[in-house]
Amino acid sequence: MAAPAFLPELATQVVVPVAAVVGIAFAVLQWVLVSKVKVSPEPRRGDGSSGKSGAGASEYLIEEEEGLNEHNVVVKCAEIQTAISEGATSFLFTEYKYVGLFMGIFAVLIFLFLGSVEGFSTKSQPCHYNKGKTCKPALANAIFSTIAFVLGAVTSLVSGFLGMKIATYANARTTLEARKGVGKAFITAFRSGAVMGFLLAASGLFVLYVAINLFGIYYGDDWEGLYEAITGYGLGGSSMALFGRVGGGIYTKAADVGADLVGKLERNIPEDDPRNPAVIADNVGDNVGDIAGMGSDLFGSYAESSCAALVVASISSFGINHEFTPMLYPLLISSVGIIACLITTLFATDFFEIKAVDEIEPALKNQLIISTAVMTVGIALVSWLGLPYTFTIFNFGVQKTVYNWQLFLCVAVGLWAGLIIGFVTEYYTSNAYSPVQDVADSCRTGAATNVIFGLALGYKSVIIPIFAIAFSIFLSFSLAAMYGVAVAALGMLSTIATGLAIDAYGPISDNAGGIAEMAGMSHRIRERTDALDAAGNTTAAIGKGFAIGSAALVSLALFGAFVSRAEISTVDVLTPKVFIGLLVGAMLPYWFSAMTMKSVGSAALKMVEEVRRQFNTIPGIMEGTTKPDYATCVKISTDASIKEMIPPGALVMLTPLIVGILFGVETLSGVLAGALVSGVQIAISASNTGGAWDNAKKYIEAGASEHARTLGPKGSDPHKAAVIGDTIGDPLKDTSGPSLNILIKLMAVESLVFAPFFATHGGILFKWL
Amino acid sequence: MAAPAFLPELATQVVVPVAAVVGIAFAVLQWVLVSKVKVSPEPRRGDGSSGKSGAGASEYLIEEEEGLNEHNVVVKCAEIQTAISEGATSFLFTEYKYVGLFMGIFAVLIFLFLGSVEGFSTKSQPCHYNKGKTCKPALANAIFSTIAFVLGAVTSLVSGFLGMKIATYANARTTLEARKGVGKAFITAFRSGAVMGFLLAASGLFVLYVAINLFGIYYGDDWEGLYEAITGYGLGGSSMALFGRVGGGIYTKAADVGADLVGKLERNIPEDDPRNPAVIADNVGDNVGDIAGMGSDLFGSYAESSCAALVVASISSFGINHEFTPMLYPLLISSVGIIACLITTLFATDFFEIKAVDEIEPALKNQLIISTAVMTVGIALVSWLGLPYTFTIFNFGVQKTVYNWQLFLCVAVGLWAGLIIGFVTEYYTSNAYSPVQDVADSCRTGAATNVIFGLALGYKSVIIPIFAIAFSIFLSFSLAAMYGVAVAALGMLSTIATGLAIDAYGPISDNAGGIAEMAGMSHRIRERTDALDAAGNTTAAIGKGFAIGSAALVSLALFGAFVSRAEISTVDVLTPKVFIGLLVGAMLPYWFSAMTMKSVGSAALKMVEEVRRQFNTIPGIMEGTTKPDYATCVKISTDASIKEMIPPGALVMLTPLIVGILFGVETLSGVLAGALVSGVQIAISASNTGGAWDNAKKYIEAGASEHARTLGPKGSDPHKAAVIGDTIGDPLKDTSGPSLNILIKLMAVESLVFAPFFATHGGILFKWL
Repeated sequence: MAAPAFLPELATQVVVPVAAVVGIAFAVLQWVLVSKVKVSPEPRRGDGSSGKSGAGASEYLIEEEEGLNEHNVVVKCAEIQTAISEGATSFLFTEYKYVGLFMGIFAVLIFLFLGSVEGFSTKSQPCHYNKGKTCKPALANAIFSTIAFVLGAVTSLVSGFLGMKIATYANARTTLEARKGVGKAFITAFRSGAVMGFLLAASGLFVLYVAINLFGIYYGDDWEGLYEAITGYGLGGSSMALFGRVGGGIYTKAADVGADLVGKLERNIPEDDPRNPAVIADNVGDNVGDIAGMGSDLFGSYAESSCAALVVASISSFGINHEFTPMLYPLLISSVGIIACLITTLFATDFFEIKAVDEIEPALKNQLIISTAVMTVGIALVSWLGLPYTFTIFNFGVQKTVYNWQLFLCVAVGLWAGLIIGFVTEYYTSNAYSPVQDVADSCRTGAATNVIFGLALGYKSVIIPIFAIAFSIFLSFSLAAMYGVAVAALGMLSTIATGLAIDAYGPISDNAGGIAEMAGMSHRIRERTDALDAAGNTTAAIGKGFAIGSAALVSLALFGAFVSRAEISTVDVLTPKVFIGLLVGAMLPYWFSAMTMKSVGSAALKMVEEVRRQFNTIPGIMEGTTKPDYATCVKISTDASIKEMIPPGALVMLTPLIVGILFGVETLSGVLAGALVSGVQIAISASNTGGAWDNAKKYIEAGASEHARTLGPKGSDPHKAAVIGDTIGDPLKDTSGPSLNILIKLMAVESLVFAPFFATHGGILFKWL
Repeated sequence: MAAPAFLPELATQVVVPVAAVVGIAFAVLQWVLVSKVKVSPEPRRGDGSSGKSGAGASEYLIEEEEGLNEHNVVVKCAEIQTAISEGATSFLFTEYKYVGLFMGIFAVLIFLFLGSVEGFSTKSQPCHYNKGKTCKPALANAIFSTIAFVLGAVTSLVSGFLGMKIATYANARTTLEARKGVGKAFITAFRSGAVMGFLLAASGLFVLYVAINLFGIYYGDDWEGLYEAITGYGLGGSSMALFGRVGGGIYTKAADVGADLVGKLERNIPEDDPRNPAVIADNVGDNVGDIAGMGSDLFGSYAESSCAALVVASISSFGINHEFTPMLYPLLISSVGIIACLITTLFATDFFEIKAVDEIEPALKNQLIISTAVMTVGIALVSWLGLPYTFTIFNFGVQKTVYNWQLFLCVAVGLWAGLIIGFVTEYYTSNAYSPVQDVADSCRTGAATNVIFGLALGYKSVIIPIFAIAFSIFLSFSLAAMYGVAVAALGMLSTIATGLAIDAYGPISDNAGGIAEMAGMSHRIRERTDALDAAGNTTAAIGKGFAIGSAALVSLALFGAFVSRAEISTVDVLTPKVFIGLLVGAMLPYWFSAMTMKSVGSAALKMVEEVRRQFNTIPGIMEGTTKPDYATCVKISTDASIKEMIPPGALVMLTPLIVGILFGVETLSGVLAGALVSGVQIAISASNTGGAWDNAKKYIEAGASEHARTLGPKGSDPHKAAVIGDTIGDPLKDTSGPSLNILIKLMAVESLVFAPFFATHGGILFKWL
C-alpha cells in the first residue's frame, strides 16, 4: 500500500463506525449499571450498585438510622416514578403524533420544491459548481434530501425518547441512592445523564455515516450531489428540535408557573408538595423540556454543523479529488470526541469518588475542563492523520489554500470558546460570585430593583461570550472560510456527550429531590438531593451557553453554505434588498420571543384554572387524604403546549419560505444574518437573567453566608421580591431564550435545503416589479 | 431672467432664512402670550391671557367658588416654580461645565485627526470624488469641521436651555390657568411646548444656513470640501445630545425612583408630596430629561440628516453642476416644515377651543395628522419648485438617475412612516386599547405575570414599526440611494416643531400637576392637570417612537455617507472583518443598556440615602412643619448623573475611534450596521414596555371602566403589582431605551467625520498582522 499523506480510506471506514458503536455500547453499559439500583422493596444487602464497593458494613441507610419504614418509602418512590414516566411518555407520544403529521407534510414539500427545480426531470445535468462534470438530476436530490430529512428527524426523536426514558428511570433511583450517601446518588444521576449524552452523540454519528455510505451507492462519484442531499439530515434534526425545544419549553414552564401560582401563592404549600395537582406535570416538564428538548437542540446543532462542513468540503479539493478521509474529517472529529468524552466520564464515575457535598460542583466543572483538554489532543491527532498538509477550500466562488494546522486551529478555537462561554455563564449565574449576590442584595429595595438589576446583569453577561464567538468566527473564517466556521462549531460540539451528560444530570437531580419530598422522605435526603440540584442549576446555565454559542457558529456556517448554493457572491449591506432583510431579521427574535412568552402565559393560565378547580371541587386534597388528579394536569399541559407552539413554529418555518419566494435570496440572506446577530444576544441575556434570578432566590433561601442571612429567611420581604424575579425568569431562561437557538438555526438550514429552489424560482415580487 | 427648471438661487437665499426667522418670531410670540399669565398675586381681573376672551363674567376661579385664599396659593406656586427653575438651571450649568470640557477636548481631537490626514499640509489637493478638480487642503477640512462641530453643539445647547427655561416658566402658569378651566391650562402648556419646538427647529435651520454661506466664502466652488466640513455640525448636535439624553435620562430617573422608593414605599406619602426632600429634584428631572434631553436628541437627528443629505448631494449632480437651489433642497424641506407646523399650531391654539377633558387627546393627535397632511403638500411643492425634473445622485461610486417625483416619494414615505410609528406606539401604550388593558389584567396574578406580559408587549410592539421603517428604507434607498434615505429621515423630522411642542407639553403638564399638589390646591385642579398629563403620557410615547424611527433612518444615511467617504464600495457580510463587526455591533446596545440601567440604579440609591438621612435627622419634615432641604437632593442628582454618564458616554465615543483605528473601516461598517439593526429593536421595545406599565398602573388608578374597577382601587394587590411594573419601566422608557438613539446616531456621525482619517491611517491591527 502506498503511504498517503493521511489515513487510508479503509482506516476511516473502520474508525468512524467503531467509535459510534463504542459510544452506544458505553451508553448501554451505563444504563445497565443504573438499573442495578432496585426500586422494588426487596432485601438490598447484595446490590452493590457501583460495582466496586461491596456491601460493606459502612453502608447504611438514613432510614435505618432514623428508624423509618424503608418499605413504604421505596413503594412510594416507585409509584411517583411511574407517574412521571407515564406523564412524560404520554406527552412525547402526543407530540410525536403532531411531529409525524408535520414531518409528513414537510417531507412532501421538500420533495415538491426541490423536484420542481428542473421540472421533475430524470435526466442528469451539468454539476452546479464543477460545470465540466455531469451530476445526478435534481429529482434525485429531492428524493434523497427527503430521505435524509426523515432520517435526521427519526434519529433525534429516538435518541431524545430514550434519553427521557433513562432520565425518568433514574430519578427515583437517585433518590434511593441518596439514602446511602451523596456520592452514590451523584454517580447514579451522572451515569443516567451519560446514557443520554453518548446515545445521542454516537447514534447521530452512526446514522450519518451509514446514510453517506448508502446514498453513495447511488451517487457514485457525484459527491457534490451526495452531500447536498445529506443536508436534509440537518434539517430533519433541527425540525425535531423545534418541537423539542419550543413545545417542551412551553410545557415545562406552563406546568411550573401554573403549579407555583396556585400552590405557593394561593394555597401556601411548598414546592413539590404531593397535594398540588400540577406537581407531576411539573416534574414531567423537567424531563421533556430540559432533557428531551435540550438534547434535540444540541443534536440539531451537531447534525447541522456536520452537514454544513460536508457540503462545503464536497466542493473543495477533498470533494473534487475524491479524498475520502479528509472528506470525512468532520465525522472523524466527532468520533474522537466520543472517545475523549468516554475517558472524561471515567474521571467522574470511576477514577475519583465524591464524598462531600462541596465536591459535586468541582467534579462537574472538571468534566468540562478534562474533556476540553483531552479533545484538544484528539483534534491535533485527527488534523495530522486525517488531512493532507495542504488543500483548498471553496470560498464563495474561489478556492482558498489551507494548511492542516490551520484547520486544527479552527476546531480548537471553537472548542475553547465553548469553555470560555461556559465559565462566563457560570460567573454570571452562580451565586458564588458577586453578580448574583448583587442581584440578591437589590431585593432589599423590592422586586422592581431586583428586576432592573437582573435585566442589566443579563445584558452585561453578553459581552464576553460575544467577543469569544466573534474571535472564533474571525479566526476560523479567515483561515478556512465557511468550512472553518463549520468545523469550529463542530469543535464546540465535539464534547457534546459530556456536555449533555452534565446537562441531563441537572433535571434528574431536580426530580430526585421532588420525589424525596413527595415520598415524605427524611429532611436529610432532601438536603443531599438539593446539593446535587444546586450544582445542576449552574451546569444547566453552562449548557445553555454552549447551546447558544454553537447555534451561532452553526447558523453562520449554514448561512455561508446557503449563500454559496444560492449563487450570490456578496451579501452587501449597502443594497436595499439586503438591508431591509437585516433589519427585519433582527426583529424576528423579538416577535418570536413575544410569542413564546405569551404562549407560556396562556398555557400557565389554563393550568391555574385546572389546579384551582381540583382544589375547589375534590374534597380532601389539602388535607392529604385524597390524591389529586395528576393525569388531567399532565394532559392540559400537553395539549396547551402543542397548541401554543403552532404560532412560533409557523413563524420559524414560514419566514424563509415566504422571504425566499417573494423577495429572493439577497433579502433572505439579510434576514438570516440579522436574526443571527440579534438572536444570539437575546438568547444569552434571557438565559443568564433567568439563571441569575433563580440562584439569587436560592442564595437567600440557603442563607449560607452572613450577607445571605441578612436577606432571608424564606418569607422575608427580600425573599418575596426574589421569588417574583425567579418567576419572571422561568419563561425567559427555559422557553423564550433557548428557543431562539432553534429560530436562527432552523431558518438557516431550511434556507440551505431550499436554496436550489429559491435560486431558480425565488424573488417573484421583485421580478414582477 | 432665464426661467430655470427650479427656483432661482436668490429665491432660495430668501426663503430659507425668512422661514427660519418666522419660526423664531413665532416662538417668541408664544412666549409673550404665555408670559401674560401672572404668577405674582395681584388683581387679576384684567389679564385676559389668551388675548381673545376678555375678562368676562363667565371666568371665575375654583378658589373663589370654594372660598380658598387665592393669595397664598399664587405665592406658593411662584415659590415652587422658582425652586424647580433654579434646580434645572443649576443642573444644566453643571452639565455645561463638563460639556465645555468635553467639547473642547473633542474639538482638538477632531482638528488633530482630520488635520493629520495630509500631514497638516496647507497645499490644495485633488478632490476626493471628482479627481480632475482641485479641492481645499485637508487642514481646511479640519478647521471648518471643528468650527461646525462647535456651532452644532452651541446651537443645541442654547435651544435646549431656552426650551427648559420656558418649560419651567410655564409650569406654574399652567397650574394657575387650570383654575379657570382645562382649556386655558391646555393652551398655556401647549404654547410653551411650541416655544421649544419652533426655537429648536428654526434656529437649527438658521445656523446651518448661515454656516453654509460663511464657509462658502472660503470654499468657493469646492462644494465637496464645504459640505464635508459641514458634517461637523451634525456631530456637534449629536454630542450635545449624548449629555442631554443620557445625562438627563439618568438624572430624571434617579430622582424619580429615589423619591418613590423612600416616599411611596417607606414613608407612605403620595407622589409630589412637598414633604419628600426629592420632590423638587423629581420635577427638575422632567424638565432636564424629557424636555432638554428629548430636544437635543431630535435636534441631533435633524442636524445629522441634513448633513448626511448635503454631503451626498455635494457629490451628486447638484454639487458637480453647482445648482444652488437643489443643493439646498434639504433646507427647503425644513423651511416649509416650519411653516406647515406654524399653521398646524394655530389649530390647537386659535381655530378650536378645548372645553372638556376628553377633547385633549384628540386635539393632540389631530396636531400630528394635520401637520402630516399639510406637510405632504409642502413636500410636493418643494420637490416641484426646488428640483430639476431629473438629476443624478451619487450611489457608492456610480451616479444614479432620479426624477423629482421620486424624491417627493422618498420624503413623503418618511413623513408618513413617522405617523404610522406614532399611532402604533399609541396603540401599544395607551390604556384605551386592549394591549395595556391585558397587561393591567395580568396584575391579578401578581407582579411576575405583569412583568412577563409587559416584556412580551414591548417585543410585539416592535413588529409594525420595523416594517414601516423597512418599507421607507426600501423605497427611498431604491429610488435615490443614501440621499433618499437621508431625505426620508428629514421627512420624518420635517414636522419636528409640532412633534416637540406635543412632547414638551407633557412634562409641563406633569409639573403643573406636581405644583398643584405641592401648593395644596383644590382636588379639582389636580384632576384637570391629571387629565392634561394623561394625554401627555401617550404623546410622550409617540414622541419616543418618532425619535427612534428617525434615528434609524438618520443612522443609515450617515452610515451610507461614511461608507462612501471611506472609499469602500461594498459592506459584505460574508467577510470575517465585516461579520464580526456586525456581531459585536449588535451586542453594543446591550452593553450600553446594562450601563445606563446600572447608572440609574446607583444614582437612585444615592438619592435614597439622602432622602432617608433628611427624614431621620431633620425633625418636623413628616409633620410638614419644617421644609426639607430640596437643594441637596438636586445637587446629588446632578452630580450622580454627570458621574454616571461617563462610562456609557465613553463607550459611545470611543468605540468608533478604537474600531476604526485598530480594525479599519470594514469592521467599523459592520459595527455600525449591527448596532443600528439591533439597537432600534431594544429602543422601541424598552420605550413601549415602560409606557405600557406606566399606563396600566394609571388605568387601575383611574378606574374609569368596569374592568378597571375590578382591579383597583389604589393599594389593592393588583395595583401594587402594577406599581412594581411602573418602577421597572421608568429607567427602560426614560433612560436606557431613548439613550440608544444616541448610541446608534453618534457612532455613525462620528465615523463619518473621522472617515478621512480612518481611510488613511485606520486598521493598524490588520495591517500589522
